[in-house]
Amino acid sequence: MRNLDEDTITQAVLARLADTPDPRVKEIVRGLVRHLHEFAREVRLTEAEWLQGIRFLTATGHKCDDRRQEFILLSDVLGLSMLTVCMNNRKPSGCTEATVFGPFHVEGAPHYDDGADVANGAKGEPCEVSCTVRGLAGEPVAGATIDVWQADADGRYDVQYAGLDQPQGRGVLRSDESGRFRFRTVVAQAYPIPDDGPVGDLLRATGRHPWRPAHLHFMIQARGYETLVTHVFRKGDRYLDSDAVFGVRESLVGDWVRQGDGTWRLDFDFVLNRAQAA
Amino acid sequence: MRNLDEDTITQAVLARLADTPDPRVKEIVRGLVRHLHEFAREVRLTEAEWLQGIRFLTATGHKCDDRRQEFILLSDVLGLSMLTVCMNNRKPSGCTEATVFGPFHVEGAPHYDDGADVANGAKGEPCEVSCTVRGLAGEPVAGATIDVWQADADGRYDVQYAGLDQPQGRGVLRSDESGRFRFRTVVAQAYPIPDDGPVGDLLRATGRHPWRPAHLHFMIQARGYETLVTHVFRKGDRYLDSDAVFGVRESLVGDWVRQGDGTWRLDFDFVLNRAQAA
Ligand SMILES: [Fe+2]
Ligand SMILES: [Fe+2]
Repeated sequence: MRNLDEDTITQAVLARLADTPDPRVKEIVRGLVRHLHEFAREVRLTEAEWLQGIRFLTATGHKCDDRRQEFILLSDVLGLSMLTVCMNNRKPSGCTEATVFGPFHVEGAPHYDDGADVANGAKGEPCEVSCTVRGLAGEPVAGATIDVWQADADGRYDVQYAGLDQPQGRGVLRSDESGRFRFRTVVAQAYPIPDDGPVGDLLRATGRHPWRPAHLHFMIQARGYETLVTHVFRKGDRYLDSDAVFGVRESLVGDWVRQGDGTWRLDFDFVLNRAQAA
Repeated sequence: MRNLDEDTITQAVLARLADTPDPRVKEIVRGLVRHLHEFAREVRLTEAEWLQGIRFLTATGHKCDDRRQEFILLSDVLGLSMLTVCMNNRKPSGCTEATVFGPFHVEGAPHYDDGADVANGAKGEPCEVSCTVRGLAGEPVAGATIDVWQADADGRYDVQYAGLDQPQGRGVLRSDESGRFRFRTVVAQAYPIPDDGPVGDLLRATGRHPWRPAHLHFMIQARGYETLVTHVFRKGDRYLDSDAVFGVRESLVGDWVRQGDGTWRLDFDFVLNRAQAA
């Protein structure tokens, strides 16, 4: 173990991991060590840069609390979140595609009856959303649990408002016998991801904007089907081709249509994949 | 940018970094993205594992405060710190080798006169340390600033004791005209790196012990010379071949010799490299 140099230290660290009891932990930690070391060697990381990296990660950790997940934001802007989604959500053609989960989901959002207003006071133009949930063979999926969450007219989620005492723009719905669910809400707007922390510094340092195209988030869970975590993006949004977190899919773009009375309407149909046998 | 898959997303993220104004920032962030993505693809990272990683980093950040640097510990146990030291401290043969800085240095430690007791109440067997600082041609380096810090008989640094109101086992000294400096202290003992946080969890999950062989830390700064950050390790220590942070060098092992009166003595000579022209 003595007298390691830059060419031998990686092997020494890998050897030290030889007794890892869980084979999957071993595989992941060894892979991490190899790629982390390769990165450092390739860019010839200096000690000052290493320290800057330590400080960046520390500040990222200190920015995390119950309402802010800066490490998810970091993973998102580096494309790691979307890469992980891509690798783990290969579905048969015809299924609705998945995209990033994002940092704004909240456990235990209020349950709403079909057709209810999930905006619950969130600012924005009124909109009605009408959806179906089906399987690949076209069969309706009844009793699916649908989590929906979204930004308001100012591009903010409820958790980004200090002192707001009730959930706004989020709720849990259930599909009916024909696989249908509906809700009223406000039109979601494009928004910059929170950029007042280390991830914002990184975006500025790399000449990138923080914007995401307008979207609704959905998480759909139903017995016998794979859980679907996805968005519906708004057709025509200027950021569709430069989403800060690389989450856009052509098949997930929906058409918000203005109605005669000035309100908006979105129709979108989801197709779930069958759960894989364990 | 739409419809990225696991094979195309890396290029899309790299393309998004094209406008990074600073070429070095660009090189580092692009290298990080490539290796992070390669890691995730190679191990086929699942979404649950990704989330566990997010939680691990968040917990690591939350463990950091004024007295604890969990990200440095993480870098240390993954060998990244020592790799960075190796890459940035290639010196001519004859120079004292560098090793890891570690998380226990404190800025603004008390200045001591030559021969003073830097233990300042730290627990342990009395020891006198006598050193010289020279250049490669053998010339004495007078007026060097020497930072020394160490663990006590229980293997703990002063900053690990809650409520301790004065620095113990650390101080700043100055070499005399002949390049010599001396101090009294206590014998440092082997210690486990702090393992009550996420890094300790990682060590346990990978079947590794947290121990470092006994050592003194030195940082030596002198005009015209490269700053030297190093340790002197204690000959005979059982952990010399399995240092948890991969920092041991044969040339940095010193011999603590017991004296007739039962106290200990260490002699060690440091050789600094000339500062490189900027
Ligand atoms: Fe969102
Ligand atoms: Fe130490």
